[in-house]
Amino acid sequence: MQKPINNNYPINDLLKQRWSPRAFSEKPVEKEKLQSILEAARWAPSAYNEQPWRFIVGIKGEKTWDMILETLLEWNRQWAGKAPVLILNLGKKTHEYKGRKNVTFKYDTGQAVAMMVTEVVNQGLVGHQMSGFDAEKATGLFEIPGDYQAISVTAIGYYGDADTLPEDMKKSEMEERKRKPLKETVFTGKFGESSDLF
Amino acid sequence: MQKPINNNYPINDLLKQRWSPRAFSEKPVEKEKLQSILEAARWAPSAYNEQPWRFIVGIKGEKTWDMILETLLEWNRQWAGKAPVLILNLGKKTHEYKGRKNVTFKYDTGQAVAMMVTEVVNQGLVGHQMSGFDAEKATGLFEIPGDYQAISVTAIGYYGDADTLPEDMKKSEMEERKRKPLKETVFTGKFGESSDLF
Repeated sequence: MQKPINNNYPINDLLKQRWSPRAFSEKPVEKEKLQSILEAARWAPSAYNEQPWRFIVGIKGEKTWDMILETLLEWNRQWAGKAPVLILNLGKKTHEYKGRKNVTFKYDTGQAVAMMVTEVVNQGLVGHQMSGFDAEKATGLFEIPGDYQAISVTAIGYYGDADTLPEDMKKSEMEERKRKPLKETVFTGKFGESSDLF
Repeated sequence: MQKPINNNYPINDLLKQRWSPRAFSEKPVEKEKLQSILEAARWAPSAYNEQPWRFIVGIKGEKTWDMILETLLEWNRQWAGKAPVLILNLGKKTHEYKGRKNVTFKYDTGQAVAMMVTEVVNQGLVGHQMSGFDAEKATGLFEIPGDYQAISVTAIGYYGDADTLPEDMKKSEMEERKRKPLKETVFTGKFGESSDLF
């Protein structure tokens, strides 16, 4: 199942086809695909090329996967438990060399994960990021040092069958995708003044 | 000039070709291209579909562009002053409905800008993000409300001529692109334990 957006202006196919479904197939993801997905994240830009992102990869059948699943909020666990790959996304809060606070570590980590989910589409897979997980629990389970922060979890796999979802999830899986109009988010002159580009 | 990466595993062309150069051409960017670039950001994923990102777009010749340039640190101003488009990237620190702190607003805004710079490549343009700008000054100049935060500035345009850059910038423009090996950033089992995927 594809769920392309109703975009007002043309954009590339990878971003047009990306979405965050919940109906995952249990079919395993090939190692080569996972390598490409993580390589895509690797080449993301970051302030001073710090690359503050780190990833803990869990593959179904291995203990790491069970541990990541355990950190998810109950509601997410319902659907994400089918996904063959769960990745815990972390960011480093301090700069490598000077140890100072890195104010863009979440921003930069977001970029790396965005590039990862773009490559996910290129590999014929789907990905769904969650902020609904217990970061403290993850920190304990994976012995995450104090200068790193668990930010989100991504479920990755092949698309499955929406009919297997609970009713409320199936409904949102089928709904049209929605975003704010660009006039509400793009300004010129000062904050809140709509740009005349649209 | 293209500067594709030396990737170890295959990734899609848009991400392979993306880079952050400093030699911008002064050739203006067509309105249609800007529309597509901002549309790409629009469809980024975000926690609870909050879409916390906002963009203030400056086009060379207009006052907004001058104001964004004024917020840049001197070193960035040297090269970014040629770019025909400067975009100030902001994030909303609170949730829309409940007003609670949004802990992923920078992460989500990073994703939207990552998707923007991916579409930049698709449009035959280059983009370079900077954290080196004065966020406080930007807040004053653009009357940014307290629940929003200026995070970064992106320069967008056509690629120019590296020979016009100052010597130090030209050197870094020509250098091979570098990233940490995946063994240093991708773990399994616990934090710091290299994944055997690589």
